Amino acid sequence: MSTEPALMSLTAVASAIADKQLSSREVTQSCLDRIARWQPHLNAFMAIEADEALKAADAADAALAKGGRRGKLHGVPLAHKDMYYEAGKVVTCGSRIRRDFVATTTSTALQRLKDAGTVRLGSLQMAEFAYGPTGHNAHFGPVHNPFGLPHVTGGSSSGSGSAVAARLTFAALGSDTGGSIRMPAHFCGVTGLKTTVGRVSRAGAMPLSQSLDTVGPLARTVEDCAVLLGLMAGADPADPTASALPVPDYAASTAQSMKGLTVGVPSAFYVDDLDSEVAHVLDTTIATLRREGANVVQVDLPDQRQLASASQLVLAVEAAAFHKRWMIERPQDYGAQVMMRLQNGLAISGVTYLEALRWRGPALAAHNAATAKVDAVIAPVSPVPAPTIAESDVGSSPGAEAVIQRLTRFTRPINYLGLPSLSVPSGFTRGGLPVGLQLVGRSFDEATILRIGAAFQRATDFHEKVPQLP
Amino acid sequence: MSTEPALMSLTAVASAIADKQLSSREVTQSCLDRIARWQPHLNAFMAIEADEALKAADAADAALAKGGRRGKLHGVPLAHKDMYYEAGKVVTCGSRIRRDFVATTTSTALQRLKDAGTVRLGSLQMAEFAYGPTGHNAHFGPVHNPFGLPHVTGGSSSGSGSAVAARLTFAALGSDTGGSIRMPAHFCGVTGLKTTVGRVSRAGAMPLSQSLDTVGPLARTVEDCAVLLGLMAGADPADPTASALPVPDYAASTAQSMKGLTVGVPSAFYVDDLDSEVAHVLDTTIATLRREGANVVQVDLPDQRQLASASQLVLAVEAAAFHKRWMIERPQDYGAQVMMRLQNGLAISGVTYLEALRWRGPALAAHNAATAKVDAVIAPVSPVPAPTIAESDVGSSPGAEAVIQRLTRFTRPINYLGLPSLSVPSGFTRGGLPVGLQLVGRSFDEATILRIGAAFQRATDFHEKVPQLP
Repeated sequence: MSTEPALMSLTAVASAIADKQLSSREVTQSCLDRIARWQPHLNAFMAIEADEALKAADAADAALAKGGRRGKLHGVPLAHKDMYYEAGKVVTCGSRIRRDFVATTTSTALQRLKDAGTVRLGSLQMAEFAYGPTGHNAHFGPVHNPFGLPHVTGGSSSGSGSAVAARLTFAALGSDTGGSIRMPAHFCGVTGLKTTVGRVSRAGAMPLSQSLDTVGPLARTVEDCAVLLGLMAGADPADPTASALPVPDYAASTAQSMKGLTVGVPSAFYVDDLDSEVAHVLDTTIATLRREGANVVQVDLPDQRQLASASQLVLAVEAAAFHKRWMIERPQDYGAQVMMRLQNGLAISGVTYLEALRWRGPALAAHNAATAKVDAVIAPVSPVPAPTIAESDVGSSPGAEAVIQRLTRFTRPINYLGLPSLSVPSGFTRGGLPVGLQLVGRSFDEATILRIGAAFQRATDFHEKVPQLP
Repeated sequence: MSTEPALMSLTAVASAIADKQLSSREVTQSCLDRIARWQPHLNAFMAIEADEALKAADAADAALAKGGRRGKLHGVPLAHKDMYYEAGKVVTCGSRIRRDFVATTTSTALQRLKDAGTVRLGSLQMAEFAYGPTGHNAHFGPVHNPFGLPHVTGGSSSGSGSAVAARLTFAALGSDTGGSIRMPAHFCGVTGLKTTVGRVSRAGAMPLSQSLDTVGPLARTVEDCAVLLGLMAGADPADPTASALPVPDYAASTAQSMKGLTVGVPSAFYVDDLDSEVAHVLDTTIATLRREGANVVQVDLPDQRQLASASQLVLAVEAAAFHKRWMIERPQDYGAQVMMRLQNGLAISGVTYLEALRWRGPALAAHNAATAKVDAVIAPVSPVPAPTIAESDVGSSPGAEAVIQRLTRFTRPINYLGLPSLSVPSGFTRGGLPVGLQLVGRSFDEATILRIGAAFQRATDFHEKVPQLP
């Protein structure tokens, strides 16, 4: 056992608490100690609730002493992106508008983790209303990358990526509408799972785009993501869009090897104009997959640029529709960049919106046909490692918009198709910045990408690297 | 038994064929004879398939002779609005664009009636692409009202209303997106059922508005509508929006009295600015309902004008999205009025569209709260009886647009709410034009409005009046 409990994985710490090798208080205190040291450098937390967390940890320990283990994650302290409603708690959504908003309901995803016994550490920073891919926030300041403080974390789940990477929380809920889980996972060197649209209930999660929003975890290992997904997935009376498809045993999938599975490497788009270090990581990862028994083949995907465009149209309209009332009543309370994005959404016609939405079925059918012979597709999450906060700051850098557009090039098409995608730490740049790759699966087949990702992590140690305090 | 089989009700003729009191050929020939006499006056049929119909009738008779009754409507000849695809048949959708379109699939609603044993008489006229409430058609000419040839039938199911009224077909499928079943039922003196959105599969039916389109029958009696709905309703793998809710025994409902049921009369909107003869019919109908044992009370509904506006926004955008490609490629092939309506849809923003759509849940909740104590709401279908074809012709009458807007005032709000509504013949003007009233039910509770409507028809004979050839 590590001398610092916060450095353990979610699964390991949950077992240690269950076996009474560690108390929830020890674990929670360990996280709080790291938070105290790192938070001034990272700005990863929106709220740190140390006293309440320790009290909840004590209660968990007391319950366990009486044989009352609440669930799989009994006593495990977690913090989440600050857009998951918890009754009685302020949920800022990274915004000034909701700075003092107190939720009256608890989101289903969060409730299911609470039902498993988790302890609340506080809440995590995010891009304003989850509408930004870098980790900047006009109201609360940027979140910093633990592997290089001048660098972005990626967004919009910026605090989730940063806090999980720095071992401040064992895992964190994120949300992925255009890449918001995979991007921070890639840039911060953690594992992130974007789920199939409909796999996890969105009830009580701040909406950005009804057609594209997904709930998913960022954690230190694939195995941890599998456990979290298993707890959260499934039908929910509060969200009619949550699928009633059976929830497989994801954790069991992660125990299998990748032998006999076929992974497709796109022949174009996802391999074009890559930063050379990202390209190198892709090459070495393909070699590792082969060594671990996967069959790696080339796949010719349909034109991905159209998918990205359609994705942005749908997102822009749906986001603007959610925000319109505030845009009229409280325009001064939005950050300039988010306001500009929302305003773009107002200009799109209903017909264009419906056309963009209706193409989804045919586009997915074309993707499925092109990938019929592979179990997953591997691709970079982004063509580049984390840019600096300065160079991607729209307010101060003239080239920032181009930098930002490039970042989400490889994530938006997957959102449009609604597919699950697992971002796995796959290497580091010479400068020490993490590089993640995404394994894109079939609809509702999170199990296969988790299986490949877990087998990959047994063969590699990129996910084990702990960033050092500067 | 009537000397003219075509004058019987659907239910009666189906029994007579089943009992071999009449052959399908006799019945079919009787319809064809009436079609031959009336069609030159009405223009109700798009295609008359006499030879095929008689051949199919003979086959039905032969099968029955061998004990092979196909279903409840074995050997009953029907014709439908020309927007229900039937594999191998031309389906014009009332348009020049689809003038020669041969369907390769059969719509689920039609297939279920075929499975019940019906014989095809041909196809019925309709407004171009079902986008018009009067019965005018720029390509195929207007359909005429059998109760007054200079008068409109109402649309868009113009041929269905006209042909059922003139006893050319025992019943006909219509579709109702903004009033297209109830309007022709009202103007032509037949019974028409707009179903709850999702009650009947729309697979293989020409789409106008995905959110509002409903499939339903026009027939001579409520009992006939109940039989048809029972055959068509229910889940359909080809249409994920078709509800899997159980299908009640609608025919059994029609056998009950209305004793103990409560009918609400709106305190405003539906009783405002009525033509005096329509107002009189409403009064006498309320008296009849009371006499038949119903409890009639006043209901205060939420503002219905906003429902109508939202309904038109949703319809305009969805229709334009379906038509955009043809609007670009074949603009000259649209009638001027339909093209103008479609163009209006192009100008509506995606945000406005989503706002109009999203208000549906709260609006329905408000309606349900306002009507919690009643089993149905009674209201006129339109403030007026059928205007003349000339005065409602946008091409030649300057006041036509105002006339048309007034027609659909009472139907569009119900479409927005998605509720079922039964239009029942309730009287005649001094000039001999029919007046129908609508019974608006709860979501998926067609059974109750069918019950009230059938009991009303047992107490009245408005539905039995047969128009006379001029």
